[in-house]
Amino acid sequence: MLTYNLTDLGSGPLYEHLYKSIKNDIIQGVIKIGDRLPSKRPFAKNLGVSVITVENAYAQLLAEGFIYSMPKRGFYVSDFENTTEEKKVPFKKGTVPVIGEESPCYADFSSNQTPSDLFPFTIWSKVIREVLNDSRAQLMTNPPCGGIFPLRESIAKYLKEFRGMNVCPEQILVGAGTEYLYGLLIQLLGSDKVYAVENPGYPKLAKIYGSYRVACEWVDMDGSGIRTEQLEEKKVDIVHITPSHHYPTGIVMPVSRRYELLGWASKGDGRYIIEDDYDSELRLSGQPIPTLQSIDISERVIYMNTFTKTLCSTVRISYMVLPQELLMRFYERLSFYSGTVSNFEQYTLARFMEEGKFETHINRLRNYYRLKRDALLEAVHKSKLKAVVSISGEEAGLHFLMDIHTPLEEEEVCSRAKSQGIQLAPLSKYYYGRPGQVKNTYVMNYSSIDMGKADEIMEQLYKSCIE
Amino acid sequence: MLTYNLTDLGSGPLYEHLYKSIKNDIIQGVIKIGDRLPSKRPFAKNLGVSVITVENAYAQLLAEGFIYSMPKRGFYVSDFENTTEEKKVPFKKGTVPVIGEESPCYADFSSNQTPSDLFPFTIWSKVIREVLNDSRAQLMTNPPCGGIFPLRESIAKYLKEFRGMNVCPEQILVGAGTEYLYGLLIQLLGSDKVYAVENPGYPKLAKIYGSYRVACEWVDMDGSGIRTEQLEEKKVDIVHITPSHHYPTGIVMPVSRRYELLGWASKGDGRYIIEDDYDSELRLSGQPIPTLQSIDISERVIYMNTFTKTLCSTVRISYMVLPQELLMRFYERLSFYSGTVSNFEQYTLARFMEEGKFETHINRLRNYYRLKRDALLEAVHKSKLKAVVSISGEEAGLHFLMDIHTPLEEEEVCSRAKSQGIQLAPLSKYYYGRPGQVKNTYVMNYSSIDMGKADEIMEQLYKSCIE
Repeated sequence: MLTYNLTDLGSGPLYEHLYKSIKNDIIQGVIKIGDRLPSKRPFAKNLGVSVITVENAYAQLLAEGFIYSMPKRGFYVSDFENTTEEKKVPFKKGTVPVIGEESPCYADFSSNQTPSDLFPFTIWSKVIREVLNDSRAQLMTNPPCGGIFPLRESIAKYLKEFRGMNVCPEQILVGAGTEYLYGLLIQLLGSDKVYAVENPGYPKLAKIYGSYRVACEWVDMDGSGIRTEQLEEKKVDIVHITPSHHYPTGIVMPVSRRYELLGWASKGDGRYIIEDDYDSELRLSGQPIPTLQSIDISERVIYMNTFTKTLCSTVRISYMVLPQELLMRFYERLSFYSGTVSNFEQYTLARFMEEGKFETHINRLRNYYRLKRDALLEAVHKSKLKAVVSISGEEAGLHFLMDIHTPLEEEEVCSRAKSQGIQLAPLSKYYYGRPGQVKNTYVMNYSSIDMGKADEIMEQLYKSCIE
Repeated sequence: MLTYNLTDLGSGPLYEHLYKSIKNDIIQGVIKIGDRLPSKRPFAKNLGVSVITVENAYAQLLAEGFIYSMPKRGFYVSDFENTTEEKKVPFKKGTVPVIGEESPCYADFSSNQTPSDLFPFTIWSKVIREVLNDSRAQLMTNPPCGGIFPLRESIAKYLKEFRGMNVCPEQILVGAGTEYLYGLLIQLLGSDKVYAVENPGYPKLAKIYGSYRVACEWVDMDGSGIRTEQLEEKKVDIVHITPSHHYPTGIVMPVSRRYELLGWASKGDGRYIIEDDYDSELRLSGQPIPTLQSIDISERVIYMNTFTKTLCSTVRISYMVLPQELLMRFYERLSFYSGTVSNFEQYTLARFMEEGKFETHINRLRNYYRLKRDALLEAVHKSKLKAVVSISGEEAGLHFLMDIHTPLEEEEVCSRAKSQGIQLAPLSKYYYGRPGQVKNTYVMNYSSIDMGKADEIMEQLYKSCIE
């Protein structure tokens, strides 16, 4: 039987010394490939150590692929030189994406990403520094599940000033992105409810409801927004809408439809409206309309907003405003959850807002996007594209719609554009179950487009859509 | 009918001018409390504006509580001076907690919180500064849903060096806290499965499964950990365990039970083990045992760990390691989710790890906690408490168990301690459905205890448990 001297070994656990000794003998060829290692009990007795020490050493060798186990027969030395690669790294490289959404495209109209020079790095760094200097004890104090109070105060103040909303900081719950908050809401409102999303709409929403395995209906839009009568027909309990600026059509829901929806909600028990105000700050023109939350007296509106559009997409902070009854339910049932946003970022953002820097930043952002939109539309008008497109929904947000009049099929246009490095997002992809309803209309998300290339892009887009 | 001159108004939307004019008249008493406002259509016609302008003005007045609506009758001026408070802020203050977990206790043994002087503020600040200077473009690039690659590489390297685990960065998914990751796992593994948690165990886990409305069984522990035969009896699909250091008993699962569990998992389709390695870095003595993940050849172990214990509880970064098959399923079904941890913190942590600072910090933490534990145990031994208590589970983590031999009821001891500002956590609270099994054993979470007060605390604890 193998034997090792396990006395006078200095520091480190006993099993590790044993594991190293055996491993060394395997590598040196002292113990051969295919050899059976001694059974644990007699080996332990022989070495004068506990069985657990031998077990641990074998487990480590097994983990590293030097030995393998044959049920009821024992442990054998592996052909480790040939097999370690597979054994140690069972994961096949290259089978899943690992790189970020940084696309190799020349012009990506399919998603929005904050241009890096637009983020206020200098001010943000300064605020972080101040927070790290001034608030050490607070930074280390576990926040309440809804978020640190100063941030919720800043948000309440902001909602009052910019959206005319009267909410208490206590009603605001902060979370790591709206997607996370949707998950919380499903837990709060119940997985036995029927949820509804807009058709067309943001496809991710239905995916999220699907992933939680809750019933989710697509409800058609008309020119004023989601159609209230379909909510009754489809027995919807909770409707998820983007009234300030519908994604992707850009429709702003008029007050009349807002009242209609509030009427629908107050008619049945457990009916709620999720008001997703995701980019209301980026309205470039047109009248602001009061939020549903602010004209709701039946406590049926859950207001949601995010900093991912206004600050940057890679700082993950969103929030929702719950009506009183839901808030109480939240505290009863879900307040055991820890917060999902780090204190460091919560305090930094709170201070950034308190000092008026968020307001300045949004104004800068709005100006930037207005100029960008204008320049892009100008590039369209200067190009040959002008003759074959019509534009709509350009008043708000970070996208507009572009109708291309072409005999080509949508797929053809997309693939021709793609071969030029231009990624298009057809509006039809935002429709559920009604293929062919819209054709050759594209959602032009322009935030990440390099304006220096605008003319060139339009030129190539034109080539993609003529025969 | 009311009339206003709405020409030559300068900037701002029309409805806002109208809203302000009416509001002013209400405040001035020109329009009296209880007065009915003109119907929208004739009023609009009279003013020469669109109905929508009137609607928006009324909506704003309604939102601010100056008017109220009577169904089918119209809008009336509120007794706003008496009612604005309630109408504008329907939320009743003081009904929900808003302050953090910062307890007013003198000694809180019920939870762990990183002492603020233990966090490496200077180094962390320096690393943040470097990241903000060097990585602007990366900071603004949307990360893949699993987290930025450099952080996943650092974690893989760390797992290799400190836990002997061979995992690819691709297998690692980063999220804002383990609680968030549990939610992802439920979506991934299915809500129709039977989950199991340890009894006794961390009560939050069962709450989370309950909140997702999935079947959750409590499975008894013996001296080696969770009892495998009960998993069969209770038809469990997924078992959630803390084998490196059971919370709260401190049991370390021996290799034999680990193999037994792996055997259980590989016997049935869809069986998985969630290995929660939440504080393995804080082992203070005793032999480290290989993780289940590293001795699993059937791809049935999901390994989880968190930085909330090792870095600080208010930086919300955790991760899990998925076996290949689950990883593919994750990318198929759930990769539409955006990440939940901000890029700023991901890049900071990656750099912090790369530069070896995490290792240094953990060593420092371990030393600090070892000294703290020793000093606390020393204080017990020096005090009269010594005669009436026995201690166990002090080798790892941030807590030990203290048995108090007293004729008093547990509730009595807790409430007497509480009146002295000492918050105790009875072990019985971690048991499900077996009241009275353990009595007067306390889980002593010591990380936030002020050691300067240790002798005094023991003195008072003693007083709380003698008749």
